[in-house]
Amino acid sequence: MSSLYSLENIVFALEIIGTIAFAISGATLGLEKGMDLMGITILGLTTGVGGGIIRDIIIGQTPPLTFRDPTYLIISVVVSVIVFTPPVRRWIFSDSMLYEWLMLIMDSVGLGVFTVLGIKSAYTVSSIHGVILFTFVGMLTGVGGGVLRDMMAGNRPYIFVKHFYASASLIGALTCIALWDRVGTVLAMGIGAGLIVLLRLLAAHYHWSLPKANIPRDN
Amino acid sequence: MSSLYSLENIVFALEIIGTIAFAISGATLGLEKGMDLMGITILGLTTGVGGGIIRDIIIGQTPPLTFRDPTYLIISVVVSVIVFTPPVRRWIFSDSMLYEWLMLIMDSVGLGVFTVLGIKSAYTVSSIHGVILFTFVGMLTGVGGGVLRDMMAGNRPYIFVKHFYASASLIGALTCIALWDRVGTVLAMGIGAGLIVLLRLLAAHYHWSLPKANIPRDN
Amino acid sequence: MSSLYSLENIVFALEIIGTIAFAISGATLGLEKGMDLMGITILGLTTGVGGGIIRDIIIGQTPPLTFRDPTYLIISVVVSVIVFTPPVRRWIFSDSMLYEWLMLIMDSVGLGVFTVLGIKSAYTVSSIHGVILFTFVGMLTGVGGGVLRDMMAGNRPYIFVKHFYASASLIGALTCIALWDRVGTVLAMGIGAGLIVLLRLLAAHYHWSLPKANIPRDN
Repeated sequence: MSSLYSLENIVFALEIIGTIAFAISGATLGLEKGMDLMGITILGLTTGVGGGIIRDIIIGQTPPLTFRDPTYLIISVVVSVIVFTPPVRRWIFSDSMLYEWLMLIMDSVGLGVFTVLGIKSAYTVSSIHGVILFTFVGMLTGVGGGVLRDMMAGNRPYIFVKHFYASASLIGALTCIALWDRVGTVLAMGIGAGLIVLLRLLAAHYHWSLPKANIPRDN
Repeated sequence: MSSLYSLENIVFALEIIGTIAFAISGATLGLEKGMDLMGITILGLTTGVGGGIIRDIIIGQTPPLTFRDPTYLIISVVVSVIVFTPPVRRWIFSDSMLYEWLMLIMDSVGLGVFTVLGIKSAYTVSSIHGVILFTFVGMLTGVGGGVLRDMMAGNRPYIFVKHFYASASLIGALTCIALWDRVGTVLAMGIGAGLIVLLRLLAAHYHWSLPKANIPRDN
Repeated sequence: MSSLYSLENIVFALEIIGTIAFAISGATLGLEKGMDLMGITILGLTTGVGGGIIRDIIIGQTPPLTFRDPTYLIISVVVSVIVFTPPVRRWIFSDSMLYEWLMLIMDSVGLGVFTVLGIKSAYTVSSIHGVILFTFVGMLTGVGGGVLRDMMAGNRPYIFVKHFYASASLIGALTCIALWDRVGTVLAMGIGAGLIVLLRLLAAHYHWSLPKANIPRDN
């Protein structure tokens, strides 16, 4: 009983952390695109709750959690407004490295947290189990918010641009699933999410890249 | 009985008006992008029925209304073909102001009508009630068709470009919800939708804008 | 019994063919955009399973088939990796005509197969029947994967660019539905899908185009 309660609390805390991180990444991208307060709020909100909405629609949990519990929506809006306030935005753009690192870290935390939350939802809700399916739902939940953010802002999605993005989500998802029954749900989720953030940071620092096709054509 | 019948009729009439308005905005944008008849029809159709499909998927009403009753689909196609006919398109582009105003008015009517229709659906279908959730479903239904239209046509969504777009939807949604139990559903929807259209027109005329972040960076 | 079994087998075979064809088109577009192995795999996967996911969400079959049976996911990933291997990609880009024809043929096969599979699903699952609704679900399933592919890769969707795309899907869908009760499901699906591929190839060869609006404006 106490363990279940504890798991619920940790899942809730992860949802909050992931929502805040993704909302910051969305609002910051909106700032960088010169959007107004409402545009920034919408981009922050879309990024913060988008992955969860996609996950819930896919697994047939309608209306999605965001529409049943306004917590995530309120957090995304508040975070976006804070990012917009003059002191915060002056700070973010006071140094071009700071902007890059903020986007990297917030986007990585959102990616890591939502990947393992997607796996958790698939385990809980779906009667169909299997490594491939858990991995797929996890990755889709993890990358969904960022893909919506980038497409709405008119950028090519990070997932096609950053060399170690979906790969990090994939490795973290597989690790989380492999550990699930061995070390317990909470630890498996923590290790999975932490590994994704770590891999993204290492990839950015050491400029990891996957093999790329050299096509003898322009465009 | 008579009152219920009347409400149903008014909701149906609003769905028709919103569909026509959004289909005109989609088809007109297709014309402006130099698309052919089929492209224009698809853009008109996507805009006309897109918001309603998003709404129905979110609240778990599947298959969406558009797939159960072909009325909206047929209307969107017919409207798009009419927009494409030479006399109509010559008229639309006979004056550059006319194109701008047509897009503004049709898009505003669609936004206003679908915002209150989203609120109505959330009230009717969902067992979860709350101002924030009604507002969210209303805004998502209102802006959904236009966001799909703009993204498919390769434009940055109006919601990020027009200064008083989501703000108008938000104010109209809150007004509609506040009046819901006080003046009756029909009047609340009428006032909410009308207010959204009025705010958009005033914003366009007086060049209202929200605070914008001035970032000392290019891009 | 044997007949039903046979129908199931043919539907399964069509799902495999459509998935392979669309995955090739997505992975090849990823190559052409200079993406890395992961980006190419994601674009191949999105295109291969995207249309089916949209179809299943629309008709309320959640979780979508792709999440219940990993076959399609695995096929899309394997196909994408094969497309990425040096000999294959050298071959694809050894001649610029070859790239164009490969994209045309794979995209056409995917379009044809998924259009009739969408109709099949609508017949099987939905209790609401009607030519317009079957046609709409069929076309949405057929064009969905390609629209996702093109929007994620930052291209204007084929559906707005290729002159005889949605038109081919529409004609094939209507033919399939008209023949459904007359010649049997299997033959109706085969003729419908074959007609779509044939129309697309003829359109490409003879440069068919639909009437286009000549607007006296730039942009």
